[in-house]
Amino acid sequence: MMPDQEHPVLELDSTDSWNLLAGSELGRIAVSVGDVPEIFPINYLAHEGVVLFCTAEGSKLVNLTINRHVAFETDGFTEDFAWSVIVHGTAEILPNGAQTEAAEKLLQHSWIPTVKYVFVAITPEQVTGRRFARGPAPDRW
Amino acid sequence: MMPDQEHPVLELDSTDSWNLLAGSELGRIAVSVGDVPEIFPINYLAHEGVVLFCTAEGSKLVNLTINRHVAFETDGFTEDFAWSVIVHGTAEILPNGAQTEAAEKLLQHSWIPTVKYVFVAITPEQVTGRRFARGPAPDRW
Repeated sequence: MMPDQEHPVLELDSTDSWNLLAGSELGRIAVSVGDVPEIFPINYLAHEGVVLFCTAEGSKLVNLTINRHVAFETDGFTEDFAWSVIVHGTAEILPNGAQTEAAEKLLQHSWIPTVKYVFVAITPEQVTGRRFARGPAPDRW
Repeated sequence: MMPDQEHPVLELDSTDSWNLLAGSELGRIAVSVGDVPEIFPINYLAHEGVVLFCTAEGSKLVNLTINRHVAFETDGFTEDFAWSVIVHGTAEILPNGAQTEAAEKLLQHSWIPTVKYVFVAITPEQVTGRRFARGPAPDRW
């Protein structure tokens, strides 16, 4: 089902949302530190129900996200439609050797070469998504 | 100056960062609510030193961002390079009639048709950016 000019925003169920997320590789993770938000772009891989990313050991990103609530967003668009998926969950460092195959795949498409790294998994508590029809603005009230 | 395989990440100054931000139109705003992060995609316009966006009156996005610290991110990439710009600042609703010309421009390229809307301005306290060389992962330690 697609949105149209009459119903320009369509709420997606968690399965459709996850499938869109799984087809992309660039997202942003938001974290809250003393009620001040931080945001970081990440290359990620959707793998067996978690959002996996890697980052430098000891980085600010690791220190701020681990064992905390995080919000994660990814999006995409074509000429006619746009979509956005948001995950709420918690992040944890994976033990060495875990997720090896997925980890190698992730490393191969990451933008940022990193020599000493850790893998972090975001375990979703909620996955939501919306698809938008892109079009001219309607008449205003 | 461009990053390369030897120096794959280049920190950008605030002017270069702002110019990259000003050339794009889709970003994400992060906000912290009781130490839990939220994230929203937004269409935006860089205008006279602020990041301007519009959203439905009374929306969750408005309620959560106004008069709060926000973090805002936008990014882009080509085959060889990627960049990301992050703004830390505060958000406030603009009075009716303010920013009229910019507002019209913003409405014309917004994805989400909205009939009753408010304009919100993010006033930056800090603008940072990084440019990445996209390439294969280096040898690991």
